[in-house]
Amino acid sequence: MNTQELNISKEIWEKDQAHLIHPYTNYKKFNTEGSVVYAKGEKHWIFDADGNKYLDGIAGLWCVNVGHGREDIAEIMAAEASKLAYYNTFEDATSIPAAELAAKLAEIAPENLNHVFFGTGGSMANDTAIKMAHYYFNLKGLPKKKKVISRDLAYHGSTFLAHTLTGIHSTHIGFDLVKDLVHYVSAPYTYRRPAELTEEEFCDFLIKELEDKINEVGADEIACFIAEPILGAGGVLVPPKGYHKRTWELCQKNDILYISDEVVTAFGRLGEMIASESIYDVKPDILVMAKGISSGYIPLGATMISDEIFEVISQPKEGNPYFSHGFTYSGHPLACAVGLKNIEIMENEHFCEHVQNLGPYFETQLASLSDLPIVGDIRGSKFMLCVECVKDKNTKEGFADEVTIAKRIYYHAKERGLIVRPLGSLLVLSPPLTFDKDAIDECVYILRESILASMEDLIREGIL
Amino acid sequence: MNTQELNISKEIWEKDQAHLIHPYTNYKKFNTEGSVVYAKGEKHWIFDADGNKYLDGIAGLWCVNVGHGREDIAEIMAAEASKLAYYNTFEDATSIPAAELAAKLAEIAPENLNHVFFGTGGSMANDTAIKMAHYYFNLKGLPKKKKVISRDLAYHGSTFLAHTLTGIHSTHIGFDLVKDLVHYVSAPYTYRRPAELTEEEFCDFLIKELEDKINEVGADEIACFIAEPILGAGGVLVPPKGYHKRTWELCQKNDILYISDEVVTAFGRLGEMIASESIYDVKPDILVMAKGISSGYIPLGATMISDEIFEVISQPKEGNPYFSHGFTYSGHPLACAVGLKNIEIMENEHFCEHVQNLGPYFETQLASLSDLPIVGDIRGSKFMLCVECVKDKNTKEGFADEVTIAKRIYYHAKERGLIVRPLGSLLVLSPPLTFDKDAIDECVYILRESILASMEDLIREGIL
Repeated sequence: MNTQELNISKEIWEKDQAHLIHPYTNYKKFNTEGSVVYAKGEKHWIFDADGNKYLDGIAGLWCVNVGHGREDIAEIMAAEASKLAYYNTFEDATSIPAAELAAKLAEIAPENLNHVFFGTGGSMANDTAIKMAHYYFNLKGLPKKKKVISRDLAYHGSTFLAHTLTGIHSTHIGFDLVKDLVHYVSAPYTYRRPAELTEEEFCDFLIKELEDKINEVGADEIACFIAEPILGAGGVLVPPKGYHKRTWELCQKNDILYISDEVVTAFGRLGEMIASESIYDVKPDILVMAKGISSGYIPLGATMISDEIFEVISQPKEGNPYFSHGFTYSGHPLACAVGLKNIEIMENEHFCEHVQNLGPYFETQLASLSDLPIVGDIRGSKFMLCVECVKDKNTKEGFADEVTIAKRIYYHAKERGLIVRPLGSLLVLSPPLTFDKDAIDECVYILRESILASMEDLIREGIL
Repeated sequence: MNTQELNISKEIWEKDQAHLIHPYTNYKKFNTEGSVVYAKGEKHWIFDADGNKYLDGIAGLWCVNVGHGREDIAEIMAAEASKLAYYNTFEDATSIPAAELAAKLAEIAPENLNHVFFGTGGSMANDTAIKMAHYYFNLKGLPKKKKVISRDLAYHGSTFLAHTLTGIHSTHIGFDLVKDLVHYVSAPYTYRRPAELTEEEFCDFLIKELEDKINEVGADEIACFIAEPILGAGGVLVPPKGYHKRTWELCQKNDILYISDEVVTAFGRLGEMIASESIYDVKPDILVMAKGISSGYIPLGATMISDEIFEVISQPKEGNPYFSHGFTYSGHPLACAVGLKNIEIMENEHFCEHVQNLGPYFETQLASLSDLPIVGDIRGSKFMLCVECVKDKNTKEGFADEVTIAKRIYYHAKERGLIVRPLGSLLVLSPPLTFDKDAIDECVYILRESILASMEDLIREGIL
């Protein structure tokens, strides 16, 4: 790094601190610590403005699935921008990429999902899913079916409605939520299940709890159940075996729509384009996608609905024959062109097969950290993994919040050239799907070193 | 057009009909009539897949302000995609374009607005504005201040919350809304004001109504008032003179935040980068932008908040020191780079001056249609204009909904090579800011011909 680079980075920091409101941030810390200015990416590496190189263990934010800096995506963007970056898709207007991407998604989604509503990200796609579920039941003449069942520790986004769907209750503090809409059941947090239960019994417990909740609220008042196949920002929680299918069957039995939020899991992260049916044997009524759909190169999200829902909501209704929902950028031509190119890349370069092949290796290598005294759990699947740190392995007692254990490890890892995502006591990994054996080895090596370095700090500070 | 082109367009139509859910659409009509496949744009012209050329009278959807097919934007997109299309801006991460665009917006916005939260469009930006207002009053220890005052015919978007803010009540039919949150006052619909009132008296009436509403709900329970300077999708409604400043003063007096929704009006459409203060003498506490911020080339929106609000919401609070709101694509580097380039283009090519110079000509030329028997009102400002059709000019009686008067004129105009936006009985014009005298003349000429042709149809059908 040279003086000029340092000056750029200082000047940007200053503008950033003075003007940019960062999402999910503690501004007190931010104001003293400042920002890292990321300036360049290449495959699964990322570089800051001072020239430091990092292994990107989080794919931007669970999204840059095909990797950073792809020339072919840059080319398609330039070509589409010169041709027709934007036109609306209201009423009788459409564009080639919007129609083609909708058709392509219908091809890769479970068979009953053939209709696509586009937006610009996961929050909006979930928000749309609930609005559609309400509209559907209103048009079906079942206006009482409105409530939503979500789960503790679920993450479904940040619009007023999506934040309410989100079950990470600490994020609700200080905010208002939609009232009387969402009921939460327990997170399928297998590691922290009641000590007396086996995994199988824990599954029975969760299913019974959901059944009780349905009975308590009343199936005739419940529109839908919303669930990530593996809970993401809530802690990469993998439900016990059989959980997905049994929750789905309960929904079916009670005429409750099943919304599968695959914002993180779709497009290869678990080795399948769509995980719900292929991996978990669930046929959702509504499927929500974002992130990997465009590998983050451009904001894009999609809400896919079943033929049955489309049949109902596409009927003109009394008072207003229009389906009065939609966004300026629904079906944005350039965004859809990027989505199409992204899927083409994934197919041509066999990213799903790569994740299927290398996922088990990643899991095994990460599991090797379990000998470390503060590593309580290592979980997840394939390219969506997590390490949970604890103060006491036997009791599973966690560190106090003030210790910011994951943040400490994050800083050590960053110094060593790896970016992981610290969340409370968790270290989350969701790298680009370009990750190869070398990257996995380096990632796990740096993590071990960083955990050890953090332990030393804690011992020195008298915390451990 | 040749056979191959026709086949492309047929194939795309079929995919489109089978898979793409169009926003704000009557699917019964859509299924019989199909889509126009737009394939190319150039400045203020647009071409369908069959090679037909149209004057784009609506800038995509009030957004392609700098015009279609700009090579310089294509180049910046390719350059940024090769470099770093995406990285998150959570906590300590940032990027050069995100910081630079935030600083640039602070420079062009009214002086008290220096903090920017980015999202991907107008709905999300308004959704965020209300969430922030709630959070602000919670942190200030005023948790009762939560209600929102909006207006009939206001358009603020389509998330669950933004749809509730929207006062076009026909769009609510069939949908659920956030309960007990929004109170609506009358639209400042000067043309359809009570017949006995002068424009000045109508303004007094509206201000009195807002004052009464504040007293009825109670200022201590109202968080904010949200308003577009000129109501867009509700009918290009220009409030009576003095209305903006007086509503703002009422808000100030009652400690009610004033949210200016400039999704349509900002970035040159009214000849100013930001209209609120420059044109209407209002200093909003929250300013919402989208559309013209990126000229639609990429989904981008922004919520700017006052220094006072930022001061409060950036304090760590009990229970969770984080501002727990944000989106994956908040501060999307590539999107912000496009936003920066777009503003640079607007400044270098003097788009605001162009609109200031040519706006009055556009207004005058469009006003020349007022001799037509079914033209009831012509209104708007500069590059944001509207024609309202009526059955009877004297009584202002409108056509029955079934006549779909604007849609008829729209079809005639499309045949003649012009796209306008039909909304009920309104023809909306919001062209790219590249529109020159020739384009204005052609646009007004085609509109006249199309209105005349529609009148002939109506006479033939016995409706007129």
